Amino acid sequence: MDSDFGIARELSDLQKLRSLYQPELPPCLQGTAVRVEFGDSTTAADPSDDHTISRSFPNTYRQRLAHFLRDTAKVPNAQVITEHPAIRVGVVFCGRQSPGGHNVIWGLHDALKVHNKNSTLIGFLGGSEGLFAQKALEVTDDILATYKNQGGYDLLGRTKDQIRTTEQVKAAMAACTALKLDGLVIIGGVTSNTDAAQLAETFAVEKCPTKVVGVPVTLNGDLKNQFVETNVGFDTICKVNSQLISNVCTDALSAEKYYYFIRLMGRKHSHVALECTLQSHPNMVILGEEVSASKFTLFDLTKKICDAVQARAEQDKYHGVILLPEGLIESIPEVYALLQEIHGLLKQGVSVDNISTQLSPWASALFNFLPIFIRKQLLLHPESDDSAQLSQIETEKLLAYLVEAEINKRLKEGTYKGKKFNAICHFFGYQARGSLPSKFDCDYAYVLGHICYHVLAAGLNGYMATVTNLKNPVNKWKCGAAPISAMMTVHRYGHGAGAGAVSIGKPAVHPATVDLKSKAYDLFCQNARKFLMDDVYRNPGPLQFDGAGADSKAVTLCVEDQDYMGRIKKLQEHLDKVRNIVKPGCSQDVLKVALSAMASVTDILGVMSTPGAHTQFQE
Amino acid sequence: MDSDFGIARELSDLQKLRSLYQPELPPCLQGTAVRVEFGDSTTAADPSDDHTISRSFPNTYRQRLAHFLRDTAKVPNAQVITEHPAIRVGVVFCGRQSPGGHNVIWGLHDALKVHNKNSTLIGFLGGSEGLFAQKALEVTDDILATYKNQGGYDLLGRTKDQIRTTEQVKAAMAACTALKLDGLVIIGGVTSNTDAAQLAETFAVEKCPTKVVGVPVTLNGDLKNQFVETNVGFDTICKVNSQLISNVCTDALSAEKYYYFIRLMGRKHSHVALECTLQSHPNMVILGEEVSASKFTLFDLTKKICDAVQARAEQDKYHGVILLPEGLIESIPEVYALLQEIHGLLKQGVSVDNISTQLSPWASALFNFLPIFIRKQLLLHPESDDSAQLSQIETEKLLAYLVEAEINKRLKEGTYKGKKFNAICHFFGYQARGSLPSKFDCDYAYVLGHICYHVLAAGLNGYMATVTNLKNPVNKWKCGAAPISAMMTVHRYGHGAGAGAVSIGKPAVHPATVDLKSKAYDLFCQNARKFLMDDVYRNPGPLQFDGAGADSKAVTLCVEDQDYMGRIKKLQEHLDKVRNIVKPGCSQDVLKVALSAMASVTDILGVMSTPGAHTQFQE
Repeated sequence: MDSDFGIARELSDLQKLRSLYQPELPPCLQGTAVRVEFGDSTTAADPSDDHTISRSFPNTYRQRLAHFLRDTAKVPNAQVITEHPAIRVGVVFCGRQSPGGHNVIWGLHDALKVHNKNSTLIGFLGGSEGLFAQKALEVTDDILATYKNQGGYDLLGRTKDQIRTTEQVKAAMAACTALKLDGLVIIGGVTSNTDAAQLAETFAVEKCPTKVVGVPVTLNGDLKNQFVETNVGFDTICKVNSQLISNVCTDALSAEKYYYFIRLMGRKHSHVALECTLQSHPNMVILGEEVSASKFTLFDLTKKICDAVQARAEQDKYHGVILLPEGLIESIPEVYALLQEIHGLLKQGVSVDNISTQLSPWASALFNFLPIFIRKQLLLHPESDDSAQLSQIETEKLLAYLVEAEINKRLKEGTYKGKKFNAICHFFGYQARGSLPSKFDCDYAYVLGHICYHVLAAGLNGYMATVTNLKNPVNKWKCGAAPISAMMTVHRYGHGAGAGAVSIGKPAVHPATVDLKSKAYDLFCQNARKFLMDDVYRNPGPLQFDGAGADSKAVTLCVEDQDYMGRIKKLQEHLDKVRNIVKPGCSQDVLKVALSAMASVTDILGVMSTPGAHTQFQE
Repeated sequence: MDSDFGIARELSDLQKLRSLYQPELPPCLQGTAVRVEFGDSTTAADPSDDHTISRSFPNTYRQRLAHFLRDTAKVPNAQVITEHPAIRVGVVFCGRQSPGGHNVIWGLHDALKVHNKNSTLIGFLGGSEGLFAQKALEVTDDILATYKNQGGYDLLGRTKDQIRTTEQVKAAMAACTALKLDGLVIIGGVTSNTDAAQLAETFAVEKCPTKVVGVPVTLNGDLKNQFVETNVGFDTICKVNSQLISNVCTDALSAEKYYYFIRLMGRKHSHVALECTLQSHPNMVILGEEVSASKFTLFDLTKKICDAVQARAEQDKYHGVILLPEGLIESIPEVYALLQEIHGLLKQGVSVDNISTQLSPWASALFNFLPIFIRKQLLLHPESDDSAQLSQIETEKLLAYLVEAEINKRLKEGTYKGKKFNAICHFFGYQARGSLPSKFDCDYAYVLGHICYHVLAAGLNGYMATVTNLKNPVNKWKCGAAPISAMMTVHRYGHGAGAGAVSIGKPAVHPATVDLKSKAYDLFCQNARKFLMDDVYRNPGPLQFDGAGADSKAVTLCVEDQDYMGRIKKLQEHLDKVRNIVKPGCSQDVLKVALSAMASVTDILGVMSTPGAHTQFQE
C-alpha cells in the first residue's frame, strides 16, 4: 500500500504530546555553519585485518576521523563550511524497525532545511526494495508532523534487508543517478551498514557522485565498536522489555508457584538480555556469550537451571524468572553443529521431510532426542545472514521441557524433595519493537540525523554518523563521523586437521558480542547470586516521558567508560604538545628525556599492536 | 517463604515516586465520622431468582442498600456513627493478582487508624491457605511503605482461590474466632465474592460475630452488575495490553508482511478484548459473546478471518492485527461440546492417554481434525470453576493454523491471488498482571479500602464495597455498599428432550458477559469496518503517571451511562416528593392525577418484572 506511506494519522493524547517534543541539539550542531576538524587517518581495531580491508576498500578505508565542532571552538585547522548549496538527499530504512528511526529522518530534514531551504529530502518507500524500484516521496514538514518522536518505520516502511548482490548495487546506483542524489543515508544495523560501506566504495570506483552515510539504528544493540557506543532503539527496547519482565517478576512473587522462562529478542548476541537483567533483576539469565565461552551443552544448561530450582526449593521458594536471549540456541555447541548440518542439507536442496534421515549419526541422535516442536523449528530455512530463524525457535519451551523432565527425575530419585515444578513460557519481542521511543532514543536519533547532513556537507563518503559521551547530558555529547570500513573485522575460519589451512571471510561490520571482561558484565556477576536467591526484583515501570525515570539511560551504557573519540582527541593534544615543546633549539636535556620517554611508548605500543596479538580463530 | 512477605524492598525511581502518591478521597469519606443512609431493601436483578436466593441466604439477602454521605449532607434519617471502638479486621487476597490490590489494604488501614488508632489490621499470608492456617502479620505503616500504589499481591501473597468446602469454611471461622476479628475483608473477583457472601451467611447462622465484606478486584472486569461499574485492575490491564497491542500494530504497519494473532487474558468473557480494541483500534477482534450469540463454528471463524485477509490483500495490504479473548475457545459451540465430553471423561477417571478413544464419534472426528498441539491442551484438567485451562489453550495458534491452511487452499484454487500469508502468534497475559497500577486503579482501590471500614463501622455483613459514578472525577464519586447476594443470579440448565426438565444451579455472582446491546459494543460495531480496512491504529502509549494520558479512563466505563446507585436515590426522592405533595387533605384533583399516573407506572413495571420475562436458558 504505497499510497498509505507518509499519510497523516490520528494520534492519541500521549502521541500528540510526544509529537510536540523538540529534542535538544548539542552546541556543536547549533547554528548554520558546519565546522569540521579532521583527526588522523583511521585503521581497523585488529592490525591483522588491515591488509584485507584496505584491499576491499581502496577508496574509502584509512579515511580520517571527522569531529564536528561548535561555532565558537578555537581550533585553528578546522574546516569551516559556510556555503551550503541546495542538495538532494535520499534516505532509506534498511532492516528491522527500531524505535527512534523516524527521528533520524526528522533530524536530517531539519538540518537540510536550516542550511538551505531549497534542499530536498527524498524518502524511499518500502525499504531497499523501494530504493531499487525508485519509489520515493519528498519528506516535508507536513509529512513529518505525525511521525515525530513516534515508533515504527511506517512513515516509509521497510522490506528486505540487503543491498548486496551486483544487481541490487546497480539498482541502487541507478536510483541515485536518476534522482540526482548528492547523498544517500542508510538507516540500519550491522548488515545494512556493511552494505552502506560497500555501496560507498562502489560509488567511488564508478565515479557516482552520491555520497553514502550510515546510521547505527538497531534494537539489538550489537553495532558497538571503538566509535559507536550504542544504537538507536536499544534503550527503548530494553526499557519496554524490562517493564514486562518486572511485571512478570511481581507476578511470580505474588503467586509463588511458577517459573517463567522468557526469551528476549535481540538476534545472535545477548546485549538486550544483559541490559534487561541489570534493569529488572530477574533470578537468572543465560547469556549466549557465557555458553560459548564455557562450551556449555544442553545437558549442562538443564543441570544449571535445575540446581538453581533445587537450591530455591530448599528455601521454600517455588517461583522464579529466567531470561534467555533468542541467540542462545546457536551458542550451544552441539545444537549449533546440528543447525550447521541442517542448513547445509537445506542448501543442497534436500527437502525438509528428508533431512532427518540424512543427518550424521551423531546429529541424528541429538535431533531425535529433542521434542517434536523444536525439531520443526530447527528445520526452518536460515535467514539472509546464515543464522537460524532465531525468533521462531522456542528455546524457552525447550529448556522448560528439559528442566521439568530433570526435576521429575530427581523427584523420583529422591534428590529433589520440593513441590511440583511449573513453567510458563513467554517470548518478548514484537510487542516492544513498535514502542514509542524513549527520550534518549528520540534525542540520539534526531542528533544523528543532523550529523548526517554535516557529513554530507563535508563531502565525506562511506562514513557512519557517530555521537560519543552519550552517558552525559545532550549538551556534552560529542558529534563526529568515522569511516565504516574502520569498524570492520575479518573472520578467519580454521579447518581442523590441515595445519595453517585458514580461510578468510569478507570484511564486515560484525555484531559485537557481550564483552565478558566489561564492567557491565562484572556488575552482573557481582550480583548474580543475590538475584538468584534473594528475589531482589526491581521494577523500572512503564516508559515515562515526564518526571522520575524519564531521563534514565541504559545501565550498560552508563557503567562503561567509553569516550573513545574524546581520548583520541586528548592523545592528539599530547602529541601536539610534545612537538611544540621539543622544537629544534630546545635544550639537549629536554630532547634526551623526550626521546627516551617516546622510545619507551613506541616500544610498548609496537609489541601490543603486532598482527596476530588479537587474532581469534573461529571454528 | 512466609518470612519474605511484607518485607521492605528496593524500589526503582519511578516506584519510589509512585509510593509517594496520595490518592484523593471523595468528600463523603473525609473526616472522622461515618454517616450512612439506608435505602430500600435490595432484590436480585431477575425476579425469578428471588426465591432461590432468599432460601440460600435467609440472613443476608434482602438487606438494605447503604450510601455513605458527606459530613455536611442534610439527610434527616442518616445514621451518624461517631463512636469508634478499636476493632480488629482481617484481610485476605483471594484469587488471581490484579494491579491495585495493595491499595485496598492501604485504604482500609488508613481508615481504621483515622477512626481509632488502636484498631488493628491483620493480613493473612498466602491467600485463603494462610487464612485457614491462621498465618498472619499485622499490617503497619512501615510495612505498607514500599507497597503503596505498587502492583502484584506480594505484600501478602495468594494461593488457592476458594473458601467453599465445609472444611474450608470451618477453618475460616476458626481463624476469625481465634484472632477475635470484628471484620474480614475478602479481596477478589466473582468466585471470591460468592464465597464471601456464603461465609457471611454461615457466620450469621453460626452467630460468629465477624462481619464479612467483599471488594471487587479482578483484572477480568467481569464482576459487573447493577451496583458495580468496574473492577480494580481492569483499567491497568487494558492500558498495558493496549500499549503492547499498539506496538504490534505499529510493527505490522512498518514491516507490512505479518498478521499478528494476539490472545488476551481475561477468562471466559471478552471485557478486556473489547476495551483494548476501543483503545488501540486493531484490525479485528472476535468476542466470545458474538460467537456464542451467532453460534459461529470454527469453520465460520476461519472463513471470516480469511475473507478479511482476502479483502485486505485486494487493497495490497498483507499485514494486520487480530485480537482473541482467551475465553473464545469455550464460546465456539462444537469445541465447547468437545471440552464438556473431555472434562466428563476426566472426572470419571479416564486417563489422558485413553480419552481420545472414548469420545463420541462426532467429538472424536473434531478432535482428530485439530492439530496435535491443541489436542494436548484440550486434554488438560479443568480449573476449579469447571472452565477449561484457558491460559494454556493456544487459540491464537489454532486459528492462525486454520487460516493459513484455508488461504493456501484458496491460493491453489485461484480464489485468493495475493502474497503468502504469514502469521505471528502472541499471548498477552502474565506480562501485564504484575504492572504498576494506573492512577485510576490506585484511587479506586484506595477508596474501596476506606469504604470497607465504613461498612464494618455500620455493622453490615455480607456486603460488597461499591463506588459509582466512576467516570467522573474522584470528588464526584458516590460511595456505598450493597449485599452481595443481591448481585447473584441462578443458572437454569434445560435438558433437551424432556419438556420442563430444568435443573437449577446454586445462586452465585456470575461473571458478566459483554452486553451486545451496550453503548461500548455499539461504538465498536460502528467502527469495525474502518478498523478492519483502514489501519486507523491508535497508540495510547505506555502507562503514564503524569501529564497526557495519566488521567484517562477505560472507554467502556466512560461511554456507558451507569449511575445505578444515583438513579436509585433519585427514584427514592421522587417517591418521597409524591408522598409529600399528596398528603391527606390535598385536593381531589391532585389525588386523582397522582393515582392515575402511579397506577400506570405500577402497571408497566408489573408487566416488566414478571418472573420469566428475563429468564435465560443455558444449554
